[in-house]
Amino acid sequence: MTNPILKDGERIDQLFSTNVRIIQNKAVFSYSVDSVLLSRFPKFPKEGLVVDLCAGNGAVGLFASSATKAKIIGIELQERLADMAQRSIALNSLENQVSVIQDDLANLLDHIPRGKVDLILCNPPYFKATETSKKNLSEHYLLARHEITTDLEAICKVSQQALKSNGRLAMVHRPDRLIEIIETMRKYRLAPKRLQFIHPKADKEANMILIEAIKDGSPQGLKILPPLIVHNSDGSYTSQVFDIYHGK
Amino acid sequence: MTNPILKDGERIDQLFSTNVRIIQNKAVFSYSVDSVLLSRFPKFPKEGLVVDLCAGNGAVGLFASSATKAKIIGIELQERLADMAQRSIALNSLENQVSVIQDDLANLLDHIPRGKVDLILCNPPYFKATETSKKNLSEHYLLARHEITTDLEAICKVSQQALKSNGRLAMVHRPDRLIEIIETMRKYRLAPKRLQFIHPKADKEANMILIEAIKDGSPQGLKILPPLIVHNSDGSYTSQVFDIYHGK
Repeated sequence: MTNPILKDGERIDQLFSTNVRIIQNKAVFSYSVDSVLLSRFPKFPKEGLVVDLCAGNGAVGLFASSATKAKIIGIELQERLADMAQRSIALNSLENQVSVIQDDLANLLDHIPRGKVDLILCNPPYFKATETSKKNLSEHYLLARHEITTDLEAICKVSQQALKSNGRLAMVHRPDRLIEIIETMRKYRLAPKRLQFIHPKADKEANMILIEAIKDGSPQGLKILPPLIVHNSDGSYTSQVFDIYHGK
Repeated sequence: MTNPILKDGERIDQLFSTNVRIIQNKAVFSYSVDSVLLSRFPKFPKEGLVVDLCAGNGAVGLFASSATKAKIIGIELQERLADMAQRSIALNSLENQVSVIQDDLANLLDHIPRGKVDLILCNPPYFKATETSKKNLSEHYLLARHEITTDLEAICKVSQQALKSNGRLAMVHRPDRLIEIIETMRKYRLAPKRLQFIHPKADKEANMILIEAIKDGSPQGLKILPPLIVHNSDGSYTSQVFDIYHGK
């Protein structure tokens, strides 16, 4: 018996700390720990407008819906993923709060007014287009992981246009690109204010970063949050991560 | 009975992991945990030339002497501190490896050749000159803590001049100035490559950073080292810090 909302190869995953259910498809796109951590990282506005760039199958925006009463609009270029997001929104009966637009994020201002967004969330492609061997990747994963249809520059540029003054951009990314992330944010007057490093274990280098910048903020006053450690030395999940997945 | 090498108010402190003894004077200047951590952070050259900018009472260079056979030259503006450093060098019989110059670091190239330094260490003044209330501070501490006689710009400029291509600058500083540190380093073609955050406890924000940059390096490939946590939740020192102080 298959759920009539699901297409071939799809299944439903649940994030227990929110009760949100997400349509996944391993062959096409599935959310991962980075989406969950991003959705729990920013200082959310109580209401207003939140935009999720590079929305994929909509996981970040749907998880975020339990943290704010703001309207949440996802924008996703790939039709197949935007369709999964649309069906997940319906599955959770969140049509009144969450929506998804299928378009290039560079066209965001065709859909929402300039300078009106309180918070932008973004789980972008991590790798430069040149870094890929392009082998063994479906087109969906290729576009989600590599800067082929968008890049840091495009994300920071549209964030500068769409955010209110003092609005926030929260992004998950990789530490080896931190310098470039900071420089690109600063080029578009987005001042990094909160930075958290995610380490697979306490004695390992960071493999993810969470960064939050404020539009038109000053360059001083960056805070480095306590590190987030994913696994204990025995391989089990730390209580930090367990709490994020299952709620306190 | 006082040791004849000591002047009024001075005492000798020992770093057990190195057996190095340092002349300290609480009223004038004493090294602290940041100097110890800086001296254990960089990738040391086996030999060659190491320079310690803002050398203070010489602690960083003296601690570093056990990690390398390189010549180590400290430069310190304040006569009183340079004199303490000189006597600590003699106290440890390290005159053949370690020396100190009393001068403004901006004049470093009057004392050493351009482009010949393998590694620069720096524990600089952390605070902008404008950030001080200037109350209750001796002149010695005031100059050591605030950017009155030198600043990030001067340090990065002279490092660019003195370092070999691919030579390294290792600095301890404060996280709230990380953006400015990265931008100033990049302005002088010093590419940050290793970054470590020091947290007083595992669940607290970082209060120190260790950063190592390579002259003429590419902006990609930054590594975020495992976090260094100073205290356990019960207030005792972590094994990470105990090992640094007492040796493994």
